[in-house]
Amino acid sequence: MTSTPLLSDVVSAQPTSGVRAAVRNVPAYPFTPIDAPIKLDQNESAYDFPAELKAQAVERMLARPWNRYPDLHADTLQAAIAAYEGWDAAGVVVTPGSNVLIKLLTELAGIGQTVLTVSPTFSVYTLEAQLLGATLVQVPLNPDFSLPVEGLKAALKSNPPGVLYVTQPHAPTGYADAEADVRAVVEAAEGWVVVIDEAYHQYSGTDYRALVQGGSNRLSLRTFSKAWGLAGARLGYALTSPQLAVQLQKLVSAFNVNALTQAALEVALEHPEYVQHRAAEVVQERGRVLAALASHPTCTPIPSGANFFLLRTPDADAAYRHLLERGIVVRRQDRLPGLNGCLRVAVGTPAENDALIAAVGEIG
Amino acid sequence: MTSTPLLSDVVSAQPTSGVRAAVRNVPAYPFTPIDAPIKLDQNESAYDFPAELKAQAVERMLARPWNRYPDLHADTLQAAIAAYEGWDAAGVVVTPGSNVLIKLLTELAGIGQTVLTVSPTFSVYTLEAQLLGATLVQVPLNPDFSLPVEGLKAALKSNPPGVLYVTQPHAPTGYADAEADVRAVVEAAEGWVVVIDEAYHQYSGTDYRALVQGGSNRLSLRTFSKAWGLAGARLGYALTSPQLAVQLQKLVSAFNVNALTQAALEVALEHPEYVQHRAAEVVQERGRVLAALASHPTCTPIPSGANFFLLRTPDADAAYRHLLERGIVVRRQDRLPGLNGCLRVAVGTPAENDALIAAVGEIG
Repeated sequence: MTSTPLLSDVVSAQPTSGVRAAVRNVPAYPFTPIDAPIKLDQNESAYDFPAELKAQAVERMLARPWNRYPDLHADTLQAAIAAYEGWDAAGVVVTPGSNVLIKLLTELAGIGQTVLTVSPTFSVYTLEAQLLGATLVQVPLNPDFSLPVEGLKAALKSNPPGVLYVTQPHAPTGYADAEADVRAVVEAAEGWVVVIDEAYHQYSGTDYRALVQGGSNRLSLRTFSKAWGLAGARLGYALTSPQLAVQLQKLVSAFNVNALTQAALEVALEHPEYVQHRAAEVVQERGRVLAALASHPTCTPIPSGANFFLLRTPDADAAYRHLLERGIVVRRQDRLPGLNGCLRVAVGTPAENDALIAAVGEIG
Repeated sequence: MTSTPLLSDVVSAQPTSGVRAAVRNVPAYPFTPIDAPIKLDQNESAYDFPAELKAQAVERMLARPWNRYPDLHADTLQAAIAAYEGWDAAGVVVTPGSNVLIKLLTELAGIGQTVLTVSPTFSVYTLEAQLLGATLVQVPLNPDFSLPVEGLKAALKSNPPGVLYVTQPHAPTGYADAEADVRAVVEAAEGWVVVIDEAYHQYSGTDYRALVQGGSNRLSLRTFSKAWGLAGARLGYALTSPQLAVQLQKLVSAFNVNALTQAALEVALEHPEYVQHRAAEVVQERGRVLAALASHPTCTPIPSGANFFLLRTPDADAAYRHLLERGIVVRRQDRLPGLNGCLRVAVGTPAENDALIAAVGEIG
């Protein structure tokens, strides 16, 4: 009836008008869930949160109102974490997962500034830097995966400040650096917000709280998703100075940690004894798996301080598909710089690890 | 022993070095929790999520692993919301609270661009714009709190694009505009990302899904925190085009909605029948309270399409303190432009509303 296009048609032709180019240019988070009986692809704990603690947690949930907003900043949980970590509660910031904290740290000190990290590194650091418009600077790891101390010190000098990420133990390599190297980099980062990501520290025995306490611009990032066996509840936290926490807290969306997760985490923190036990089991199993694979003719397991390790294979695609045929899903990392042929494999239960050892043994 | 200060002392003297000025310059979220028997300050549902549904929800939680990451984008929940809303699941985006979506929309189309809204408005729109470095443009509401249609159209023309927020019904006034006015503003916003925030739409009977479907740059923001009685579970969602959802989803932190909330919300969406009933109760009670206060000698209740209303008092501070003495906590809004003397009061249970009517009656 009319040759003039409807407004809606005009608009449909430009579906992302208004959207910032930085967002349009970034691909979506690269994760496709794969169903397999043995799940070694997300570095989760192989053991569920203990059944008796789940029961206590849901009892506590049922006793609380669900129609009321939770604490603005999860105050009770913040205090419980502070007590557990021996930290000033005013320096604790909690969010639904530590990946949210990485977004907020990029908002805090990355937008229009610099995000400095190594390469390869945890993808969320670089993804948020790209999405939010930070200048991303990456210094290649040394060939043995150790921190490029001099390269990072040079980058700290030659770039305007922003956020520096140091991951201990490192992801995705599992490498735990000498404390002196970490200290040298952190102490060179005056004027920067310095993040030591300690998501996996229970498996390496490293602990950078003392180093973080040495400067109010420093922050340790920790999580309940690994050693605590609570990836499903989503809780990450920062330990930092009260001064930096005040600034970071401004960026946390109000009421960000829901009442159900708060109840579950409060119960967990009243029973921390199982965490050390679980972590020790993983360390023992990690040693057993690495030893069993050490004599493999073509695959090389790479020593790790985390609850996962890299397995360098002659053909990552073939090895990945072979393991999947045996019911084991792992994560390909072979497209990352310096990681050709590498799969990332989480440490599972002893039975799962046996299955892994057997399946890798079949790779020629 | 040495007169050179320790590095840690130097750093402590500059606790926020590296932190962006935009963050340092913004005050923290202005909310201080007040304990009172009658809580009418956060626009929550006065009724808890039904006990039998809480029981079903925790049963479902117990049956699921807590050590595994939830779905990357809460796929099951996304599909359930899509079915409930009659929407393409590819156009649904879920986050822990709709305030998180406001942050992500600012990241999507606000950073370095424009955020356009009215004044007064929901504080999270302006807070995120300031924190993330958007140019914030606010057009004053008309004196009767209706949308300044011509003013917004002029602002859409004279500013480079970004995000436009239209709130229906409006917060904090409760005003529900004529659909023609909303449509006129939305259709003038070609090239912008257009957000219709419908957090309170169940209490006004308005529904802008059809308008949102008329353009792929449009988005309806909705929440389970109000009519569904699930503020404690934290779940907000966007209904938009698949094209815009793909871009917005890139900004959602992976595994953002925890497994516990997913279980609770799945149960809620299997039993949506109580929501309409609860909303109808609120609408009836709102009418009763407004009628009872209409004849007050000095206080004026302002008609509202939400589960709250503004009460204009001769002295907001005195009125606030008087209500608190009577065990009723409300929210002061008297410092906002055009809202001198105004308190924001949620509609409670009939007994709570009776207490409110009696307490306001004592104000001279």
